[in-house]
Amino acid sequence: MSAFDDLMSHQKETEALSSVMGRLGWDQETMMPRGAASQRAEEMAAFEGVLHARRTDPRLGEWLGNAQAPDEAGKAQLRLITQSFERAQKVPADLAQRLAKVTSTSQGIWAQAREDEDVAAFLPTLKEVVELKREEGQALAAGGNTYDAMLQDYEPGASAASLSAMFAALHPRLTALRDQVMATDQPADLDFDFDEGKQMKLTRKLAKTFGYDMSRGRVDKAVHPFSSGSGQDVRITTRTSLRDPFNCLYSTIHEVGHACYEQGISDGYLLTPVGGGISMGVHESQSRIYENQLGRSQPFCGWLYGQMRDTFGDFGVADEDTFYRTVNKLRQGYIRTEADEVQYNLHVLLRFDLEQAIISGDLAVDDLEAAWNDRFEADFGFAVDKPSNGMLQDVHWSVGLFGYFATYSLGNVYAGCLNQAMRTDLPDLDASLALGDPTPATEWLNEALQRHGGLRDPRATIAHACSGVEPSEAPLLNYLETKFTG
Amino acid sequence: MSAFDDLMSHQKETEALSSVMGRLGWDQETMMPRGAASQRAEEMAAFEGVLHARRTDPRLGEWLGNAQAPDEAGKAQLRLITQSFERAQKVPADLAQRLAKVTSTSQGIWAQAREDEDVAAFLPTLKEVVELKREEGQALAAGGNTYDAMLQDYEPGASAASLSAMFAALHPRLTALRDQVMATDQPADLDFDFDEGKQMKLTRKLAKTFGYDMSRGRVDKAVHPFSSGSGQDVRITTRTSLRDPFNCLYSTIHEVGHACYEQGISDGYLLTPVGGGISMGVHESQSRIYENQLGRSQPFCGWLYGQMRDTFGDFGVADEDTFYRTVNKLRQGYIRTEADEVQYNLHVLLRFDLEQAIISGDLAVDDLEAAWNDRFEADFGFAVDKPSNGMLQDVHWSVGLFGYFATYSLGNVYAGCLNQAMRTDLPDLDASLALGDPTPATEWLNEALQRHGGLRDPRATIAHACSGVEPSEAPLLNYLETKFTG
Repeated sequence: MSAFDDLMSHQKETEALSSVMGRLGWDQETMMPRGAASQRAEEMAAFEGVLHARRTDPRLGEWLGNAQAPDEAGKAQLRLITQSFERAQKVPADLAQRLAKVTSTSQGIWAQAREDEDVAAFLPTLKEVVELKREEGQALAAGGNTYDAMLQDYEPGASAASLSAMFAALHPRLTALRDQVMATDQPADLDFDFDEGKQMKLTRKLAKTFGYDMSRGRVDKAVHPFSSGSGQDVRITTRTSLRDPFNCLYSTIHEVGHACYEQGISDGYLLTPVGGGISMGVHESQSRIYENQLGRSQPFCGWLYGQMRDTFGDFGVADEDTFYRTVNKLRQGYIRTEADEVQYNLHVLLRFDLEQAIISGDLAVDDLEAAWNDRFEADFGFAVDKPSNGMLQDVHWSVGLFGYFATYSLGNVYAGCLNQAMRTDLPDLDASLALGDPTPATEWLNEALQRHGGLRDPRATIAHACSGVEPSEAPLLNYLETKFTG
Repeated sequence: MSAFDDLMSHQKETEALSSVMGRLGWDQETMMPRGAASQRAEEMAAFEGVLHARRTDPRLGEWLGNAQAPDEAGKAQLRLITQSFERAQKVPADLAQRLAKVTSTSQGIWAQAREDEDVAAFLPTLKEVVELKREEGQALAAGGNTYDAMLQDYEPGASAASLSAMFAALHPRLTALRDQVMATDQPADLDFDFDEGKQMKLTRKLAKTFGYDMSRGRVDKAVHPFSSGSGQDVRITTRTSLRDPFNCLYSTIHEVGHACYEQGISDGYLLTPVGGGISMGVHESQSRIYENQLGRSQPFCGWLYGQMRDTFGDFGVADEDTFYRTVNKLRQGYIRTEADEVQYNLHVLLRFDLEQAIISGDLAVDDLEAAWNDRFEADFGFAVDKPSNGMLQDVHWSVGLFGYFATYSLGNVYAGCLNQAMRTDLPDLDASLALGDPTPATEWLNEALQRHGGLRDPRATIAHACSGVEPSEAPLLNYLETKFTG
């Protein structure tokens, strides 16, 4: 066995164990009995200890020092293992365990606080999470910028400065577009009870339509839609709302985008570092292009209108065009995950700025709710009415995901780039979408991006898929301005 | 920290990780996508490697050498950790990993072979499992009897000789009882379609009735009913059959007995060796006394009859007495898990003898089907019609559970002992059961047995619950003869 083979053999077991850890997270949000929270926290902490020991195993340093990559994929494996090894060495084992334990119970506390509209019940936990994550970030930064160091966990190569520049370019044009569209007549809201069992049936059909392989996945309901797992076992969740079927259907298409990225990676990369999505931003580019550029396109909406009529009967929308405009309606709303394509990034920008201030200490956790509410009113023009529509709406901070939100907008930007390239390659795509068949698009995405997994760095992954064109926010802005005013 | 504290702290993490491993097993039988089998095998093998390393950690030997138990419970903890440590040291790590890997995929192969009625498709896998288990048993026996060594995994203190003596006492009286009852008029079979959704609803009600805490558990459907987990997260499965609601309802009550043992152990033992059931035989005593001595008793059947009329309407059984006799009807049948109380142990005895011959090598795996079918016809008087009614009916051998079957009969024997003691202490129990309330019995069992977990060895656990009376097969035989001919 060469050092490279030894290393990959060790790594395969680590990937297998990480996969189990991910599934524990899935279980916790879908299947775990409510009374099992404290035992689960012990389990997660013990497991985190095992993974941390593997990730900091001194043999990794020796193997990495001696390993010769046989090919380009091997070089990518070594690059990713090195990143992970260097990261793991910087974080003390007891800190990693404390984080795993706290963030295991904190999610339940957040969920209860959100249900009770009780920010105060969540703050002590949030403070603890922030302190531990800040401590971790400082350890990772090793004297550099703490928040930049935290970003690397989700988007290697990104920086607060580069993301701020991107947001600065997006903000004025999105705000202007929002104001322009909102000044025009908007279609009526849906006014119908959509049977939730039928929503789930249609949502499973949509999942398959977009290429989700149910023999290597499953769809369940959870409070927060998510995708989890890699390789042969990639599970998604969705949720239903009696009055708003789009919540369920588009959450599903979104998560299917994530899942298809993981399911679509070449089999040869199974249980290796390259066998997973390269970054959250690239991941989000897949979920968003499935959800928006494909799922919310006019031709696909035409087909979906027929499916919904077949499923629910006459639900009060007169024709395909009205349905398309209803799906893409801009409305005042509090919730990021329910936001339209135009306003979505404004929700993200708010979080990006607030969490930087939280991590730097410029903003105290106790002052977060007030800061959120002030900023929200400034950006959106109306006041937050209750915490579940404000700072308690997202799970992320409760589980320590600081530095994550920006990748949602980065994903939108990347989706804009991919859509531009894909449309150039597939001039007849609309004809397929009108028949409810996004296969040409999903096959294009698989070939151009998904099957390569983590072979290239995030920006290089997008550039490779776009015939070498470097990613920028321009295609997204052009797409949005054309779609919503064209 | 004393050596005892260090040991218990290490052990707590091991228990937490074992708990995760158990839940992976649950997931595999209830939730896992079909296409995830080979990845899951890698995960299980990697996990088994982690657990094996912990169980053989040389520090355990040092701690055990220096640890002073603070009390009786501490002594029991040390005894159980010592047993586990000595066992783990005997089994080479690579053998443990190979076993984990093979038995992860073998279950899927068994399930498919059973579905296809294809013994040949299962034999290569079964041979591999047998060889690995024999190798493990020889390592554990260290020159002693291989099969006896294998028994210790399920029933510490048991031996093939003692179990054979017990079976020798049971066999003639059970056969005579069976022949006597079968010669009398039996009630008609059920002839009705029992809605499977309603079965699941009633089954969940029964689970709660018998004290299953749903806030620390959940009920799902699976091919094979089982109970899984300990402490705060104890999950059960059941199955439904359109024409036979008793399959679902009594499988549930049975698994609830197992689950209540785990859920009922004192909180102070959580994530310690004493915090789990002490043996499979004692476990089975709980499932069987819930299922049979309580669930199939005449007063409880009277209440259940009303519940079933409420749930399914008139299903063709005229009155409570006919219902009781239908529930307890003796019939010719192939399937162990569907067998009546009288014939059940005959199914076990067949497996006990065959698996001893397989492990010793006296019987080749290739000859198992013929041996099974010959023995079945000799014991039951009619021929096996297809493999799923014969040697492919049980999951156990596919996952390497050799030495397990006998504990089912041991559990019945123990249940007989417990029932005798319980009935002495609770002379008015039938009045409660007639109201559908087994609480006095479940509380008695919790107080006498369940809450103590693994504090005492298996036989001592039963003797303690029975006011010091040593277990024997006499109470079970007396109970059965009274019930079925009285």
